[in-house]
Amino acid sequence: MKASSLSFLCCRSPYEESKVVILGCPLDLTASFRPGYRFAPNAIREASWNLESYSPLWERDLEEEKICDLGDLELAGTVREALGQIEEAVRELIGDGKRPLLLGGEHLITLGAVKALKGQYVDLVVLQVDAHGDLREEYLGAELSHATVMRRVWEEVGADSLLQVGVRSWDRTEAQWAREAGTFLGEGPEVTLPAELKERPLYLTLDLDVLDPGICPGVGSPEPGGWNFKDLMAFLSRLPADRLVGTDVVELSPPFDPMGGSAMVAAKVARELLLQLCKKFDI
Amino acid sequence: MKASSLSFLCCRSPYEESKVVILGCPLDLTASFRPGYRFAPNAIREASWNLESYSPLWERDLEEEKICDLGDLELAGTVREALGQIEEAVRELIGDGKRPLLLGGEHLITLGAVKALKGQYVDLVVLQVDAHGDLREEYLGAELSHATVMRRVWEEVGADSLLQVGVRSWDRTEAQWAREAGTFLGEGPEVTLPAELKERPLYLTLDLDVLDPGICPGVGSPEPGGWNFKDLMAFLSRLPADRLVGTDVVELSPPFDPMGGSAMVAAKVARELLLQLCKKFDI
Amino acid sequence: MKASSLSFLCCRSPYEESKVVILGCPLDLTASFRPGYRFAPNAIREASWNLESYSPLWERDLEEEKICDLGDLELAGTVREALGQIEEAVRELIGDGKRPLLLGGEHLITLGAVKALKGQYVDLVVLQVDAHGDLREEYLGAELSHATVMRRVWEEVGADSLLQVGVRSWDRTEAQWAREAGTFLGEGPEVTLPAELKERPLYLTLDLDVLDPGICPGVGSPEPGGWNFKDLMAFLSRLPADRLVGTDVVELSPPFDPMGGSAMVAAKVARELLLQLCKKFDI
Amino acid sequence: MKASSLSFLCCRSPYEESKVVILGCPLDLTASFRPGYRFAPNAIREASWNLESYSPLWERDLEEEKICDLGDLELAGTVREALGQIEEAVRELIGDGKRPLLLGGEHLITLGAVKALKGQYVDLVVLQVDAHGDLREEYLGAELSHATVMRRVWEEVGADSLLQVGVRSWDRTEAQWAREAGTFLGEGPEVTLPAELKERPLYLTLDLDVLDPGICPGVGSPEPGGWNFKDLMAFLSRLPADRLVGTDVVELSPPFDPMGGSAMVAAKVARELLLQLCKKFDI
Amino acid sequence: MKASSLSFLCCRSPYEESKVVILGCPLDLTASFRPGYRFAPNAIREASWNLESYSPLWERDLEEEKICDLGDLELAGTVREALGQIEEAVRELIGDGKRPLLLGGEHLITLGAVKALKGQYVDLVVLQVDAHGDLREEYLGAELSHATVMRRVWEEVGADSLLQVGVRSWDRTEAQWAREAGTFLGEGPEVTLPAELKERPLYLTLDLDVLDPGICPGVGSPEPGGWNFKDLMAFLSRLPADRLVGTDVVELSPPFDPMGGSAMVAAKVARELLLQLCKKFDI
Amino acid sequence: MKASSLSFLCCRSPYEESKVVILGCPLDLTASFRPGYRFAPNAIREASWNLESYSPLWERDLEEEKICDLGDLELAGTVREALGQIEEAVRELIGDGKRPLLLGGEHLITLGAVKALKGQYVDLVVLQVDAHGDLREEYLGAELSHATVMRRVWEEVGADSLLQVGVRSWDRTEAQWAREAGTFLGEGPEVTLPAELKERPLYLTLDLDVLDPGICPGVGSPEPGGWNFKDLMAFLSRLPADRLVGTDVVELSPPFDPMGGSAMVAAKVARELLLQLCKKFDI
Repeated sequence: MKASSLSFLCCRSPYEESKVVILGCPLDLTASFRPGYRFAPNAIREASWNLESYSPLWERDLEEEKICDLGDLELAGTVREALGQIEEAVRELIGDGKRPLLLGGEHLITLGAVKALKGQYVDLVVLQVDAHGDLREEYLGAELSHATVMRRVWEEVGADSLLQVGVRSWDRTEAQWAREAGTFLGEGPEVTLPAELKERPLYLTLDLDVLDPGICPGVGSPEPGGWNFKDLMAFLSRLPADRLVGTDVVELSPPFDPMGGSAMVAAKVARELLLQLCKKFDI
Repeated sequence: MKASSLSFLCCRSPYEESKVVILGCPLDLTASFRPGYRFAPNAIREASWNLESYSPLWERDLEEEKICDLGDLELAGTVREALGQIEEAVRELIGDGKRPLLLGGEHLITLGAVKALKGQYVDLVVLQVDAHGDLREEYLGAELSHATVMRRVWEEVGADSLLQVGVRSWDRTEAQWAREAGTFLGEGPEVTLPAELKERPLYLTLDLDVLDPGICPGVGSPEPGGWNFKDLMAFLSRLPADRLVGTDVVELSPPFDPMGGSAMVAAKVARELLLQLCKKFDI
Repeated sequence: MKASSLSFLCCRSPYEESKVVILGCPLDLTASFRPGYRFAPNAIREASWNLESYSPLWERDLEEEKICDLGDLELAGTVREALGQIEEAVRELIGDGKRPLLLGGEHLITLGAVKALKGQYVDLVVLQVDAHGDLREEYLGAELSHATVMRRVWEEVGADSLLQVGVRSWDRTEAQWAREAGTFLGEGPEVTLPAELKERPLYLTLDLDVLDPGICPGVGSPEPGGWNFKDLMAFLSRLPADRLVGTDVVELSPPFDPMGGSAMVAAKVARELLLQLCKKFDI
Repeated sequence: MKASSLSFLCCRSPYEESKVVILGCPLDLTASFRPGYRFAPNAIREASWNLESYSPLWERDLEEEKICDLGDLELAGTVREALGQIEEAVRELIGDGKRPLLLGGEHLITLGAVKALKGQYVDLVVLQVDAHGDLREEYLGAELSHATVMRRVWEEVGADSLLQVGVRSWDRTEAQWAREAGTFLGEGPEVTLPAELKERPLYLTLDLDVLDPGICPGVGSPEPGGWNFKDLMAFLSRLPADRLVGTDVVELSPPFDPMGGSAMVAAKVARELLLQLCKKFDI
Repeated sequence: MKASSLSFLCCRSPYEESKVVILGCPLDLTASFRPGYRFAPNAIREASWNLESYSPLWERDLEEEKICDLGDLELAGTVREALGQIEEAVRELIGDGKRPLLLGGEHLITLGAVKALKGQYVDLVVLQVDAHGDLREEYLGAELSHATVMRRVWEEVGADSLLQVGVRSWDRTEAQWAREAGTFLGEGPEVTLPAELKERPLYLTLDLDVLDPGICPGVGSPEPGGWNFKDLMAFLSRLPADRLVGTDVVELSPPFDPMGGSAMVAAKVARELLLQLCKKFDI
Repeated sequence: MKASSLSFLCCRSPYEESKVVILGCPLDLTASFRPGYRFAPNAIREASWNLESYSPLWERDLEEEKICDLGDLELAGTVREALGQIEEAVRELIGDGKRPLLLGGEHLITLGAVKALKGQYVDLVVLQVDAHGDLREEYLGAELSHATVMRRVWEEVGADSLLQVGVRSWDRTEAQWAREAGTFLGEGPEVTLPAELKERPLYLTLDLDVLDPGICPGVGSPEPGGWNFKDLMAFLSRLPADRLVGTDVVELSPPFDPMGGSAMVAAKVARELLLQLCKKFDI
């Protein structure tokens, strides 16, 4: 009998043989109710089966790559503990020489991943593609929130190591902080990327709400006026794939995606990122 | 106990202190059935709570402005009577030195508002941003209809005082009339605005269907092929804010917006217009 | 100008003249994201406008009663603080001789209300109509949760003062605890109510998920196999209205109610409860 | 080439050979906007193709009957004129010896049909199955409205010739009027039908909102607490089919039926009614 | 790192230790387009996480049972080949002494399962709970179809070994055939079950469309007028659990279940069936 | 009585007088279940009634043209037989000197149409506007499939007679085949069209999925990253209308279009194509 559990498309290589690994991080502060972000990784996996494994953009095919989909982390306990579990898992993956693609879950998962990666890559750069700054000092009394996560990441990686693209919504304080800290590169996909990006290890965190809600409405915090899909693809094409040491796709909210269109967008983005992660290993 | 009724974001300044005032005009010819346009103002208010009060576009913050949300007019009687009630309300507001943002409701509300404003500003210009001409002489036997409203407005303000932008759907007669009357500036957001716009008091009526239905499907008469959100923002940026004496946002139809995305678009548009209305008072 | 903010139907009597008061308690642990429970009170208010003010069940009319809708409490801070604000508000209302109908929000709001009422009515009985026991000692590490609320209420009112009807889902421990504590009267609407119910002040908390998800799908935790609407009406008819000192309707979740049908169910339930609350004052 | 336009299932007999005729009456006061009731007849036709032509209830098969689907009346002009067109069409049909099944459209169409039938059958009885009384003297200033239609019908047929079943919502005045006029038989499907029903020609008007919104949400005025489908079938089984001279199914509102479930309910009801209309001709 | 793929609730016992096994059979003749039935098993698994593992109906808890969820069969090739793969898989499972719960997929999967079971249990009885007879000789030219499956099953198990409950839709020929073959027990859940059911090995196939579309709309062929959830539970309670050698839950169609309510119904049914399958092993 | 069946807007000229003819080809391999593509032609007809008959793009009006809507072909039998019926119907239409607009249905209908047209126009060019290549040799074991249709068309028309525009998804083999066969002109709407297009008879097949799913989500195989509506209009404007001998609009899937927005897009595209088909007859 040939039976199998849900995976991202055909990504079913054995862990040992894989260089790129998919890991679901279903962090969901609303987890005690109907699943919001909790089922996003599986929704993306399901949607992936509507896609070809071949990408005309990169002229590469997932079927020809060694990728392993580990399923979802079983997160338990408080937010802080769950982030610790994500950190530990990513540390294990990169310790084994893998490049991870994390499927969120809320944006907070980025903090766990960055902590692990920073341990290995001291000069790590984090590139955030997002509609929101997520730079608040605290939010509704909490230090750990989708609205503070990149501030926490900044504290982790240090000055000049966080770059923000696409932000079109923040409060006045955040906007000012970003200007002073020099994190914000610009709202449009055509921003100039700093030259040193090609020389430092790069972690890309992609909040799907950078896309316009007309294209990707099923996110936690839709914000009118975003990028279209081709904008995002063009932006990704300009990144130095060989410097990419990990990436995540976050904030898909299946309850706000009844027809599954946003999951399909997320899946196509994930396919392109997976293939980009594989590029380094060509060399 | 600190309790309050639904308002547009934090717009809860006392009427006396406010220069800008929000007023819902839930005109809905279908009001005896399930609410269509009737609940649009409240849907926009609800959606507004998903937004920041700060606008990166204008670098202004609603929290720093004096704005009062009066709730919804209690319209009663026939369409003609309801328009009279709107006219009277707007007359009261401008008599008190306020600038109104009206939340529709059907497009007909513009006629009530324009009648009141014309009384105060004799050289009023009305700028209509809309997918439809709304210039019919009559429609299905009625003189007062969403399809005739701008013809009635034109009769009110006189020649050279109605400007139309964005129209991509009309019948042959309407299109011809507009060409002859010289009301139509062009379909795209990049149209040239006449110079005298900077010298005359301006009323802006914004029918949300000027946006593409992919971005704002929840309107009464969706018409494929419209503007995207950035087009609209770019267009608004070119308007002489200090000439703006009032504005409205009309035609949101909540039954066709089950996930609330169109209400969110309307709310963001309303936020930017409110801040634009506040600009004059800087001086 | 006659303008007004959103209220439950025609319930716009002045507070001073009203004996029955509506108060929204938009408690929503997910409040930092898209509104879940947060907008439930306003969704119920909106839906109420589809109903007649007259109830054939009680042969009474809301228009003939003095009821005041105060809007929503502005809850702030932690869950514990928000519950304190609810408690304080209810204490104020009953201190002024009013009977409250609270519109949730999550089920936790009941704890705040009960604390206030217990201060006034020492022999208070709480009647819970619900699909779930909500009797856990703690849930996902939290003492205050929708899954623990009735355990906390039980600790507040003491033995023999909590009655549960309609429960069809719990874990083994909860089920056993309820059996031992004697709180559970039965799953069906035809349960026998204890005689002393007619002699003690009664608080009714109504979790909408007691209804079958076919009838009321828009709740936080739908559970197949519930009551139909007439079951619930029949059950309400058997309650001693003159003993009712307060009530709540909780757990409507608008994001899971895109067509508004569940809000309409909630509004009709609320109308019937409001009229029942008014009955005592006949005497 | 074998091409055909949309019809109710296989009901494509030539008009001349048919005894039973289907006629769409897409009356829709909101017709200038997105179709509400306007497309209900076609929505029912489409949904019919999901059904068998055979009814286990009557043990009859549509394929073995002569039924003609005429499509939709092209209604034009004011409400009054449209009603005139319906009246005229029904007069023509019954003049040709046909029994009509009308697919609404708003409930007002019943008035047109009854006027025509009353001309032919002087002792006509109208049986209304409905959640609402629709007995108002006028509604929002209009004499002709879905809320007044049965009052107008009553004026047409005279005392003791209107019977109402299933009503669970009215205002106090209406309820009182119905009690005095003796039109109301009861809310439940188990009501006793007067004996003389078997001796007089019968017109059945079926407002789909008599069903519970859990079963048939896509109607103009959903009212929680209605019949289930079997209740309705049981009720129909008790009617004297050989006295049935015409019938209508009204108030389906496709915009509130995105998944088409309510149209399917309407179609099954229509199938059973068509077969009942055919029974007389057995004899 | 503790990561896992999607499973039905906590059903993660090792295959060797499990007596009851879950196997997804995502048979979907429309598989080349958007997933219809194809993702039903995973949709049911996802929905299961909204349920308690404890069933008040049986007073048993999934957490205390040894159940293994194998994921989905990887079906390939023609319908006939896919059915062969299902047959082979079920043969392997029962050869290993397991009792299977199959999650469909289309109803055709039952044929594969029955073929395997018939090999082991010569006096197998198949009990079909379904809105449709599925007894056609052929359908649209095909011998293997959702509309013919039970005819094929009947050919497999022989006379007096197929029992049908709940059917409320068939064509005239089917209905007649069923009457003659004596397969049909009745439409309602209260039918009398033949005494010998307690003495023969029993396979239960449950087509979710036996439930009313108001409760479970997300099926391939909704048919108004079905059972409610409690009807089904009452019926299941009357089955001789110790004779149950296998069961399936079929015809969930996720595209018609945008809010996931039907998947939740399916999951609760599956939970109850799993616990019933476990009962035998008590002895 | 003036009654009529559903047609595309006002296209009700007699067949004899019409030069342009609309024919629905509801080919739907899933036709035994809930209608997918089967009802697409009627969904497009319904949506057409939300549009004006006048097109500002071409400055022409459907009301001034002679167009006949024949309804839908009654397709029967296997896929191969259904394609034969389409071929025969189109042969009849062009034999009568008409230009057809076919409303799909699945993309396979194009094969039937092309076979008929090739018989009349030996140097026919087929222009495919599509997100997918549809060039597979076979798909899931089938030669006739939405994924192979253009390969079959290519075999029919011969080398240099198939042109593909807009494709953004294929498998590696397809992409390579297209490159070698020289069929692919480019992904964007701005591609250069070969000069000889103006000299050969042209058939345009338009798969709606060329549009971005944000604009037209209701298709069988949505693929993120497509054209917007204006792109498509601009592309159509560049076609030599006088060479157009027929066209089709395919792959609308109403079950994935609950609000009807995609049907409205399809209807507007169809209106523009109809008017383009009429142009030749000016001369």
